[in-house]
Amino acid sequence: MVHTRRTVSGMSLPARGSLPVTPRTTLRRRAGRGSHDRAEIDAILDEALVCHVAFVADGAPVVIPTAFVRVGDHLYLHGAVANRMLGALAAGAEASIAVTLLDGLVLARTAFHHSMNYRSVVLFGRGAVIEAPADKARVLDALLDRLAPGRSRASRPADAAELAATLVIAFPIAEASAKARRGPPLPDEGADAALPYWAGVIPLVTTRGAPIPAPDVTP
Amino acid sequence: MVHTRRTVSGMSLPARGSLPVTPRTTLRRRAGRGSHDRAEIDAILDEALVCHVAFVADGAPVVIPTAFVRVGDHLYLHGAVANRMLGALAAGAEASIAVTLLDGLVLARTAFHHSMNYRSVVLFGRGAVIEAPADKARVLDALLDRLAPGRSRASRPADAAELAATLVIAFPIAEASAKARRGPPLPDEGADAALPYWAGVIPLVTTRGAPIPAPDVTP
Repeated sequence: MVHTRRTVSGMSLPARGSLPVTPRTTLRRRAGRGSHDRAEIDAILDEALVCHVAFVADGAPVVIPTAFVRVGDHLYLHGAVANRMLGALAAGAEASIAVTLLDGLVLARTAFHHSMNYRSVVLFGRGAVIEAPADKARVLDALLDRLAPGRSRASRPADAAELAATLVIAFPIAEASAKARRGPPLPDEGADAALPYWAGVIPLVTTRGAPIPAPDVTP
Repeated sequence: MVHTRRTVSGMSLPARGSLPVTPRTTLRRRAGRGSHDRAEIDAILDEALVCHVAFVADGAPVVIPTAFVRVGDHLYLHGAVANRMLGALAAGAEASIAVTLLDGLVLARTAFHHSMNYRSVVLFGRGAVIEAPADKARVLDALLDRLAPGRSRASRPADAAELAATLVIAFPIAEASAKARRGPPLPDEGADAALPYWAGVIPLVTTRGAPIPAPDVTP
């Protein structure tokens, strides 16, 4: 069991520069679409609301979606203390986390040049349990403010029992890479360029709809 | 190397009934939100465009986003023959695949009752290489028609060289579960119910924007 105590006092450190490249963050395919730049990585992490966490259980891979928030040099995950994925990370299991934004469908004149526009980050490492209640509370505040700006001050904070029931994990942004595809389809060439088919991008846009009040909210 | 030859002749089999429950698809937390029903699983798979594939490389988990399409009882993945993730699946590696739709942000009067509305599927198993060019072509048609209805007939199909350069993997929908959260926040209770904060759901909606023609498309 590795229970590294780590505070979130470095939460406001600015991101800067480029991460070191390791064997597993070396860009293999279409390296021109990849980056180890912290500003690019952070921009993707800060736009997404869900990540996918992979870990190994009983010798086999498992991947689970979960909410997260980035603060400074860490992603923060949280959930019930009985959560199996969080428990694995709390116990020091190696994990890989992916964050993906889908931006558009890329249609070309040829089937082969169809693609998707996306931005994604893949991270590797081990998590650490956030144990001090004040640190946990700061992470939960950041999670709430990610859902809706100012929400941490527009709701009752978790009390001691609720904090004790919540496992908070910090995952370092230390071994990671970003990858993105942007823009129009690759040009179809030769006779393909003259084919009478439309080519271009259909953007995918995620928006927040009109809020739906809970049944017990008085207007 | 396990290279199971498997055709896609069963592609149009209707989904029916419930999948058997295995130790790793037993619902642990909030079992009331889970299901092994094929109709529910397929509805989620058919609405999503991206999945996250976890596998083990050099003893450690790796998770990668990729496009997919469901046809019948399989998910189909594709990519370049040099793609490392597809290569691992082609070699018979165990994998876990997650498909997640984020539907809304759930705001309560208490921090603790904040949540997200989502629908997700997690699958376990091993992939199989689709080798017959005609079967690969049918899968690629299904992928194109998933991007835009009828697109497989409104573009030039892959030729023999393009098919040979494309690795197509079938992943069975055999060991899988769905999980979803829907509806308003859990009611805040006691003194919390009287707190002067808004509660409810902010829907998240993904829409297709106005198509952007490629630079070489003549209007």
